[in-house]
Amino acid sequence: MLLNEPRLRQRMTDAGLDAVVATAPENVTYMSGFWALPQWIRRGPQAYVVWPASNRGAPEIITSTSTLDLVADQDVGAAKVRRFGEFHAELSPNAVGDPVGQEHLQLRRLPPHRDAIAALVAGLEEARLGNGHIGIDETGLASGHLEALAARLPNVKITPAAALLREVRAVKTDHEIDRLRQVARIAERSIEAALGVAKVGATELDLARAFHVQTIEDGAFPVLGCIGFGERSALMNVQPSDRRLRIGEIIRFDVGGRFHHYRADVARIATLGEPPPEARRLHRALLRGVQHACEIIRPGIAASHVFGEVMRVVQREGIPHYRRDHVGHGIGLDGYDAPTLSSNSSEVLEEGMVLCVETPYYEIGRWGLQVEDMLVVRSGGVERLMATDGEIIAVPL
Amino acid sequence: MLLNEPRLRQRMTDAGLDAVVATAPENVTYMSGFWALPQWIRRGPQAYVVWPASNRGAPEIITSTSTLDLVADQDVGAAKVRRFGEFHAELSPNAVGDPVGQEHLQLRRLPPHRDAIAALVAGLEEARLGNGHIGIDETGLASGHLEALAARLPNVKITPAAALLREVRAVKTDHEIDRLRQVARIAERSIEAALGVAKVGATELDLARAFHVQTIEDGAFPVLGCIGFGERSALMNVQPSDRRLRIGEIIRFDVGGRFHHYRADVARIATLGEPPPEARRLHRALLRGVQHACEIIRPGIAASHVFGEVMRVVQREGIPHYRRDHVGHGIGLDGYDAPTLSSNSSEVLEEGMVLCVETPYYEIGRWGLQVEDMLVVRSGGVERLMATDGEIIAVPL
Repeated sequence: MLLNEPRLRQRMTDAGLDAVVATAPENVTYMSGFWALPQWIRRGPQAYVVWPASNRGAPEIITSTSTLDLVADQDVGAAKVRRFGEFHAELSPNAVGDPVGQEHLQLRRLPPHRDAIAALVAGLEEARLGNGHIGIDETGLASGHLEALAARLPNVKITPAAALLREVRAVKTDHEIDRLRQVARIAERSIEAALGVAKVGATELDLARAFHVQTIEDGAFPVLGCIGFGERSALMNVQPSDRRLRIGEIIRFDVGGRFHHYRADVARIATLGEPPPEARRLHRALLRGVQHACEIIRPGIAASHVFGEVMRVVQREGIPHYRRDHVGHGIGLDGYDAPTLSSNSSEVLEEGMVLCVETPYYEIGRWGLQVEDMLVVRSGGVERLMATDGEIIAVPL
Repeated sequence: MLLNEPRLRQRMTDAGLDAVVATAPENVTYMSGFWALPQWIRRGPQAYVVWPASNRGAPEIITSTSTLDLVADQDVGAAKVRRFGEFHAELSPNAVGDPVGQEHLQLRRLPPHRDAIAALVAGLEEARLGNGHIGIDETGLASGHLEALAARLPNVKITPAAALLREVRAVKTDHEIDRLRQVARIAERSIEAALGVAKVGATELDLARAFHVQTIEDGAFPVLGCIGFGERSALMNVQPSDRRLRIGEIIRFDVGGRFHHYRADVARIATLGEPPPEARRLHRALLRGVQHACEIIRPGIAASHVFGEVMRVVQREGIPHYRRDHVGHGIGLDGYDAPTLSSNSSEVLEEGMVLCVETPYYEIGRWGLQVEDMLVVRSGGVERLMATDGEIIAVPL
């Protein structure tokens, strides 16, 4: 299971919630395992999970009739399903021998609701939550939906719950960590594949193609592919262009795909031939910062403390003027999960958090350097999810 | 330019709007050419375009400081830029020789606003729109933003504008049609590549990998990859699995990537070896429906009329019980642009619309068959964007 159920139950109890409703794609998938294609690739399509408190009944997926095939075909954790809208399909007598088809047909026999909000209202009312305290993930609802809900459930107390769910998602289950481990490795192998085509005259787009092809070959889906050469490596969000690579130039990767819906976000620096000594010096300071984080991170330490320590080390080790708002963040179904490693964070690290620790450094017009590792907070310290050490990768000429 | 500016101006005049504010990723990119990475790959990050009526000044991009590199590196159409938030970067003396770096530095010298809404309020006030009638694309704002705007601009009349912008986007410019033509061809080439690995024992995932790799090689980004064999082809949103291909089975593709942000959505049926005669018979009816649409579509015809005609032809040509809610939709930056070819649509086709015309037919437990073509509505009829004719592709054994 993706969901950290004890943590969700605890937060719900703390907040006095009778139920939580997931509405954003990452929360729906997180709470049920259900991945609703239309919701993930477009804005607007609605799918929900209603998750009642322990004594209030079973969780329920609410989704459009046109996506019931995905419910049938996926390993979803919710006990109940509710559908809305119509979508035509015929029944073949052959369906008997096809378990997914059978399940699909059964789901299609459920009574349809008019639309997503009507289904949600019915779901809450049938679960006798019509005068409860409901936490609603406000991030996935369409404009006006929250108001419509409030109007149709006048006795419900509604509290926004996106922040609560983000907090729950921060501590990963083993199942999630396994996916994150795999997607981190896929990102590293994809960097290696990209560097396989790095030579004088190769373009950023050449490397990006090789990167994403490897990501696909390894079973993941491309998402982030910031790959920049030379002065373009200083563009934080650099999108690959036909800029050609020259000897001695920096190649910055800030990259990562999705594997079974879980994101990677890692950064590595390479150079074509030997790196300029100054780049090596600066990069060493950045790497020391990440290495120091790996040494000090353990459960119970404050995120803000990690931030201060990493900044201090980078500044001491070679970049006295180093400035950052944060030196890392959680990662999971979203590329920026909790916690944030920043000076003003009040978060405390917990066992099972998966973090991207990063020390980017941008000199506009010259180069951008960056180390970003993925790691798990373990009881005894850190488990790095990386196969490479974060040193500059000098591609032989 | 992506934007159909005369159409936008006309709709704004009709609606009595002094300005329109784009907030959803597709509308921001559409109105300015600006593609803000964080907004496209996550939910939450904000970027806007303020587009005043003709006599009200120049359009303005509002985006976070951390994305100014993308503004500098992209061919954006808006004359003004406004930034919010901080993001640290150093200035290299080398920046002088780097035009993108120079532009980036200049943008970073703009005064920062505290957050997205503060920047938007300032932008509207400075453009003397503080007591105007503003159309706000409600689909990209975070929860509570619309209320915050209304509170901070008490003299502004706010009207939701997502529907208006969708209507504007429905009639494509030449620049857009060029991208759509290319992405449609990439989808077809990717189907061809996938069929290149179709053989007894190949899995859906094998074909999906070959499909997405070709999409990447052709310069596009994977989005939609529904590829199903046999009884799994009847799952509308089928996600590739390790199901193995057998002789004579249906392979259904409902697929398409993004090329320069523009979507493809096409469907083709293949079989390993000769198709079953019954599949051929049903498929012929579906193909006739799409072919008939291509014959009758022209500017001035009602979307609902096309729907009725396509349904009539499919029913007459071999599937008397054929039922659908729609037989097609527009396509562009979003996978479902206006118009919708449905019985209850009040839309009328116009020159320059780009449509996906489709006749899917699902027999749960047996197979799914589908033809989906992309085409442009031209003054004299239809320009198909497809290289293939839509017949069943029989892969030789």
